[in-house]
Amino acid sequence: MNVYLFFAMRIKDEEKQEALFEATVKLVNEIGFAASSVAKIAKEAKVSAATLYVYYKNKEDLLVSTYLAIKRHTSKAILKDFDASMPIRGILERAWFNMFRYAMEQSHYFQFAEQFANSPYADLIDLEEVESYFEPIIQALQKGIHQKIVKDVSVDILKAFIYYPIVVLSNSRMCRDFNICEDNMKTAFRLAWDAIKIH
Amino acid sequence: MNVYLFFAMRIKDEEKQEALFEATVKLVNEIGFAASSVAKIAKEAKVSAATLYVYYKNKEDLLVSTYLAIKRHTSKAILKDFDASMPIRGILERAWFNMFRYAMEQSHYFQFAEQFANSPYADLIDLEEVESYFEPIIQALQKGIHQKIVKDVSVDILKAFIYYPIVVLSNSRMCRDFNICEDNMKTAFRLAWDAIKIH
Repeated sequence: MNVYLFFAMRIKDEEKQEALFEATVKLVNEIGFAASSVAKIAKEAKVSAATLYVYYKNKEDLLVSTYLAIKRHTSKAILKDFDASMPIRGILERAWFNMFRYAMEQSHYFQFAEQFANSPYADLIDLEEVESYFEPIIQALQKGIHQKIVKDVSVDILKAFIYYPIVVLSNSRMCRDFNICEDNMKTAFRLAWDAIKIH
Repeated sequence: MNVYLFFAMRIKDEEKQEALFEATVKLVNEIGFAASSVAKIAKEAKVSAATLYVYYKNKEDLLVSTYLAIKRHTSKAILKDFDASMPIRGILERAWFNMFRYAMEQSHYFQFAEQFANSPYADLIDLEEVESYFEPIIQALQKGIHQKIVKDVSVDILKAFIYYPIVVLSNSRMCRDFNICEDNMKTAFRLAWDAIKIH
């Protein structure tokens, strides 16, 4: 195979995988996990079911891969301009607003991920792999604990106060006006920081 | 109609409604909103579809009624031993543990409510009606704000720190060991209180 053809095929492949990814997110958000069959997802992506099975073993594999791709995407957004040399408060504040912007702009990815995490499919996920995507933030928190700035509690508890409030507050069903929420997010970060810091 | 027959019929009616309520929660948790048809729910509840339509106009009405019933149930659990004369910290701590116990013991109701609140059906809910169920807590928070003990921020933000962490931490997909979580909830309440109090 000549080089040009090789790359042309690779691009074609990536386009198909991208189409399957977007179709999975769209369908699951619209009609839920149970109703989103492989056949419907393939149709929505404008590929054949046979093509889908080239990339994914089955529906579970497709859903899990979609979730992991979203989590990688999310971690990249959160870690934008990450600087480990900054004080822990500054690191978390930057990550907080990166995350908030991502949740507003990519709300369909966010919605899929939240639904997935609350579904039985979540049991198929290797939690350590997902955590590895967010490793720099976890290390910064651990450094903060070591420096006696952040409370010495489990990462699960810290996440419940510095990550999940964003999930709630960026939810359009809760905060219907974007501007109000943008202001609220500044206030909310103050509460998040007060929750986790040692006084 | 004699009185005995009247009450016998009422009890029968309540049993049917109870069966429909439980069937709705069970099916939606198992197969999702889209796949939970009226026919399947009626079958699961062992009543005819015609009987279901005596009580509920349509699927939306059934789902919304189920959600509201769970929210009333939840508020009753949270407000157990509520005492408006206690200091705000004590009121919130009692509500926190009531809520945590409810989330652990009635996790299927909790799971339904979380899924519902993240679904398009949530748009059909009168939020003011739901808030009215939790009125004593909201009044206690407002009293705390007035007394300059609690930060003067919106109830949405306060909820993100004193209510949603329970939703996350009681999620069996996150905290797999009940005992660990029971301990964690004490620690977590400290973070919740630090988040909302004025220092």
